[in-house]
Amino acid sequence: VSRRLQDNLGAIIVAAGRGTRFGDADKVFAQLGGRPVLEYALRLIATQRDITVAVLVLGEHNLARGAELVAALGLRDGIVCAGGATRSDSVRAGLGRLDPDVEIVAIHDAARPLASPALLRRLLDAGHATGAAVPAIPVADTIQVMTESGQVEALLDRGRLRAIQTPQVFRRDWLERAFAANPGATTDEGSLLHAAGYPVTSVLGEPHNYKLTTRNDLVVAEALLAARAVAP
Amino acid sequence: VSRRLQDNLGAIIVAAGRGTRFGDADKVFAQLGGRPVLEYALRLIATQRDITVAVLVLGEHNLARGAELVAALGLRDGIVCAGGATRSDSVRAGLGRLDPDVEIVAIHDAARPLASPALLRRLLDAGHATGAAVPAIPVADTIQVMTESGQVEALLDRGRLRAIQTPQVFRRDWLERAFAANPGATTDEGSLLHAAGYPVTSVLGEPHNYKLTTRNDLVVAEALLAARAVAP
Repeated sequence: VSRRLQDNLGAIIVAAGRGTRFGDADKVFAQLGGRPVLEYALRLIATQRDITVAVLVLGEHNLARGAELVAALGLRDGIVCAGGATRSDSVRAGLGRLDPDVEIVAIHDAARPLASPALLRRLLDAGHATGAAVPAIPVADTIQVMTESGQVEALLDRGRLRAIQTPQVFRRDWLERAFAANPGATTDEGSLLHAAGYPVTSVLGEPHNYKLTTRNDLVVAEALLAARAVAP
Repeated sequence: VSRRLQDNLGAIIVAAGRGTRFGDADKVFAQLGGRPVLEYALRLIATQRDITVAVLVLGEHNLARGAELVAALGLRDGIVCAGGATRSDSVRAGLGRLDPDVEIVAIHDAARPLASPALLRRLLDAGHATGAAVPAIPVADTIQVMTESGQVEALLDRGRLRAIQTPQVFRRDWLERAFAANPGATTDEGSLLHAAGYPVTSVLGEPHNYKLTTRNDLVVAEALLAARAVAP
């Protein structure tokens, strides 16, 4: 299955989340290293020349800003579209904008600005070869499972845990069938495919590729960029 | 139970791990902001004047270096002792060095240099009031549980997950009874107490208070310190 990658790769950048823990709805337009957070994901996708189309899924009120950014970056194959109320709605909106001949789709959270081109490349190759690939890293902390009422329900052996990141890369037909089977999914797409019975391959992720959820996370990301610990 | 804190608080700093993922056994003596990683935990404990004794648990080969550091920092009440093969062995070795009148014990990983004095204070107060307190933060990533053979066994709803950090603060008698009931424990002590049936209270942790496991984590910590995102 290690055939040469063809012109059938598309990308969806998910940036329609409400960012409630961040304090406002426009986390992806916050400044990081002098650029909007969102710009990092767009530039990341643009590093891979075999990705021929990138759909940027935004909240309705951010469509104009998003389109301006795509134009300013000179991304010829960038498309902007409006997301929905849930992550699942947003990803499906993005899928609907991809040409029928796109067979492999990379999905990336705009709120993870520090993923490297090398990581995306590994995911594209693994996703192409296996049909579904996600980045995973070991978990350093003990993880507790809480009950609805906030009590500790279970403690998990961290040696058997992995934290799952994006970009994730999938066969488009698997993704569409998994969404059709579970249209209310609230998880990441790797979890959705796994739950639907598809084999999902883990690729080693990157510790610095974390998801910005609070303003403090932005301070951390800024420090990482300033120290050039991460190639922007 | 909100009585004034008395002179019965001790601390154990655990620094005897092998650091295999770090590439060498001496992670806690690696340089961070021009100081050994270990120095941050010692300084953190020293910020709380009601902690009257701190036991630093080290690998046998690091005892001399550790004692030098304790002396250089002028920590009158610092004790150095040798750990064991497991975390449990090391913490119990530390407990054995505390005076009998120490009733409340803070346990902290030396590999978490970025915990703040304010966090330690919150844990001391909550541990004193409730008997067992641990810092916990929300989890941003999906967490997978893997089987022994590396397959995905389960996917967990991150909304119900918390990552558990240190410092953790406990009634000494609870801790000793929990260790007696489960001498082979390999978890953090909060998990040990929870498994032994004691109520464990969660206090909001700090996102930057993560555990250094790889050399890359040290780069991240360095960037955080340089940006003064974290008070050293």
